[in-house]
Amino acid sequence: MRAEIVGIGTELLLGEIENSNARWISERLAEIGVDVLHHQVVGDNVERIVDALRLALSRSDVVIATGGLGPTQDDVTREALASMLGVRLLRDPKVEEAIRERFARVGREMPESNLRQADVPQGARVIAARRGTAPGLRCEVGSARIYVLPGVPAEMQEMMVDHVLPELARRAGPSAIASRAIRCVGIAESRVAELVDDLFHGSANPTVAFLAGGGEVRVRLTAKAGTREEAEALIAPIAAEVERRLGDVVYASDAESLEEVVGRLLASARRTLACAESLTGGELAARITSVPGASAYFLGSAVCYSAASKREVLGVPAEVLEAAGPVSRECAQAMARGARALFRADVAVALTGAAGPEPHGAAEPGLVWVALEADPRVSHQRAIRAPGDRSMVRRWAEQAALDLVRRHLRGLPLPQGDRVV
Amino acid sequence: MRAEIVGIGTELLLGEIENSNARWISERLAEIGVDVLHHQVVGDNVERIVDALRLALSRSDVVIATGGLGPTQDDVTREALASMLGVRLLRDPKVEEAIRERFARVGREMPESNLRQADVPQGARVIAARRGTAPGLRCEVGSARIYVLPGVPAEMQEMMVDHVLPELARRAGPSAIASRAIRCVGIAESRVAELVDDLFHGSANPTVAFLAGGGEVRVRLTAKAGTREEAEALIAPIAAEVERRLGDVVYASDAESLEEVVGRLLASARRTLACAESLTGGELAARITSVPGASAYFLGSAVCYSAASKREVLGVPAEVLEAAGPVSRECAQAMARGARALFRADVAVALTGAAGPEPHGAAEPGLVWVALEADPRVSHQRAIRAPGDRSMVRRWAEQAALDLVRRHLRGLPLPQGDRVV
Repeated sequence: MRAEIVGIGTELLLGEIENSNARWISERLAEIGVDVLHHQVVGDNVERIVDALRLALSRSDVVIATGGLGPTQDDVTREALASMLGVRLLRDPKVEEAIRERFARVGREMPESNLRQADVPQGARVIAARRGTAPGLRCEVGSARIYVLPGVPAEMQEMMVDHVLPELARRAGPSAIASRAIRCVGIAESRVAELVDDLFHGSANPTVAFLAGGGEVRVRLTAKAGTREEAEALIAPIAAEVERRLGDVVYASDAESLEEVVGRLLASARRTLACAESLTGGELAARITSVPGASAYFLGSAVCYSAASKREVLGVPAEVLEAAGPVSRECAQAMARGARALFRADVAVALTGAAGPEPHGAAEPGLVWVALEADPRVSHQRAIRAPGDRSMVRRWAEQAALDLVRRHLRGLPLPQGDRVV
Repeated sequence: MRAEIVGIGTELLLGEIENSNARWISERLAEIGVDVLHHQVVGDNVERIVDALRLALSRSDVVIATGGLGPTQDDVTREALASMLGVRLLRDPKVEEAIRERFARVGREMPESNLRQADVPQGARVIAARRGTAPGLRCEVGSARIYVLPGVPAEMQEMMVDHVLPELARRAGPSAIASRAIRCVGIAESRVAELVDDLFHGSANPTVAFLAGGGEVRVRLTAKAGTREEAEALIAPIAAEVERRLGDVVYASDAESLEEVVGRLLASARRTLACAESLTGGELAARITSVPGASAYFLGSAVCYSAASKREVLGVPAEVLEAAGPVSRECAQAMARGARALFRADVAVALTGAAGPEPHGAAEPGLVWVALEADPRVSHQRAIRAPGDRSMVRRWAEQAALDLVRRHLRGLPLPQGDRVV
């Protein structure tokens, strides 16, 4: 079954809000094996809404449109739907009563304009709103079906879960999509592709996609089959082969983030972690503590942005700061040692570098030193040269630090020297 | 001028990532007075990309397509563009050299597949990539123009800012949209609307929109006119009246963030700041240091996630932690004092609270204590009850801390007691 999602709302075209409904609906449809081949977005304009719905109906079995069902004059999706179907809008007495009741219940006077929400194109079925006042609509057009749902995410999601998804799952019959992301750190996207691309030559099921971003590469495998279990069974052997070829740069399958993996490894080894941060300014700690339950293994981070605080809070020797400079192997090592002592942590990791846009002392933007200190007698430092702007450099630095902790905890070799990305 | 945005990528249709590029591009185009009438999204499929581009060209003066320019086999936007134009792909020697140089510079071997990124449809102009390796492309098709840009947001944005926006602004000629966001902190959206809504009754130019999110409320005014100056002149008097009515909850007009405002106030007063963070786990410091030049006023943050580190790093008395608990006025005050002493800062701000989903000791999720310590003898604490999930609670806590610093530096009254939002 082919589906298409049509977002309606001028605010989407002005970039005032993100089209998060399209993403949410797409994800839900994928889970029940419905293919989404197109998204469209149009403004609150009858003619363009009609064109968009016609186009969608010409190439899809089911169309889900969201938005433009509110009570104000700029909400014209009902009118557009009636115009496309060539029918009149009729006021639905049941919907009118529900709207009046809703206002009476909260003791508020009802603006007359709200009754526009009770207007239904002749022949359409009403999908009642549990919350909100705008009902959804369902029409059959030839062999295709169109749903029109409110743009407010909570109202749309409620109708999708209660009505649309069960109806489509029945219609789609036994078919499902399964998808798995294999996540890698410390390797370039093109190198990943080179290592595994041949597995997918001529393969339409599962399919593969490579996604690079945020200092990591994801290999996404997607398979279709009669049931979710069968689709997963198609993925399993190829996923295992992809993981085997990529080796220890793979840090997780599926949704687990690098900070979650590191947290899980720390918790199961019953070891504690502390950080010392300069260029990342607290972002490494923020990512580690974004994981619920981080207090079981994370003690804290000394964010030392000035040379004085590196000396006084972390005990970095003044000679190191003068001779080697703040962006150096020696400074990173002293910071990690200082953090380990300050927080009495089992493992400490430190980051110092030039995030840019300006050089930091002698260090060019993008140069970062990462240091790991752990018991017994693990003392490791490496430099990376990160690409991009300030926020990208920070992100790459964090990935390198988290990966060092992951490798240490898993007993994997610790990378040496530069990793240039 | 009518523009259309075409997002290319199967991951968008699977709902794996949000189409944030469409939003960002739409916002930028609105700023230069270019109307966006449609968004489309299609997967990595040559035939459907060709259809989407054809449709877009049939109704728009300019088409901006993003995605599918990577080095891997699933990236087929180049092929689709050439097929739609009816031309061949030619390898561009300059682009090839730039890609080879990039790899040589960082001392890495280049996978041959990367050279696909040097393939250019005959007649297309190359938009060089400052970062990344994928160049953008520009073609003229009849009187319309099509841009094809990388899907990676940072690479796309760089090309938009350096090339596409200046070219389109010249083409669009004298017609412009001006827009201003008035940013407020410490006030509810409905209260903002109540205070200023009457200013916009019956006004189509400028228009107003209220947007709440991230612990703040934005009042966005948008006006259209022949020139940007004229559009801005339409906004100015109403913006002044909005700001007058809202008073000191307004922290900025336009794009300046709360952390930028605080940074500017600190820099001009030549005062330094330090933080002590518990529930925010370094995110407050990360936001402060995301501003280039923060090292002029920001010294550091002690992220103390455990009770022991609050005692040992910040000197919070054991009696305070036992009697009042870690989420208390007394603990927040002691943390701020500790951070001020540790970093020798002029101003220190501390945050401790329960981010959730679990209560933190006796504190229910959402309860946060904020403390400010500054010379001479400023010692202020307040509690807030923040709504939502873990990340929302953290965000609200940071807003409250930054707003306390802003109010202190500007000599405004410091809010007392609970703010329930």
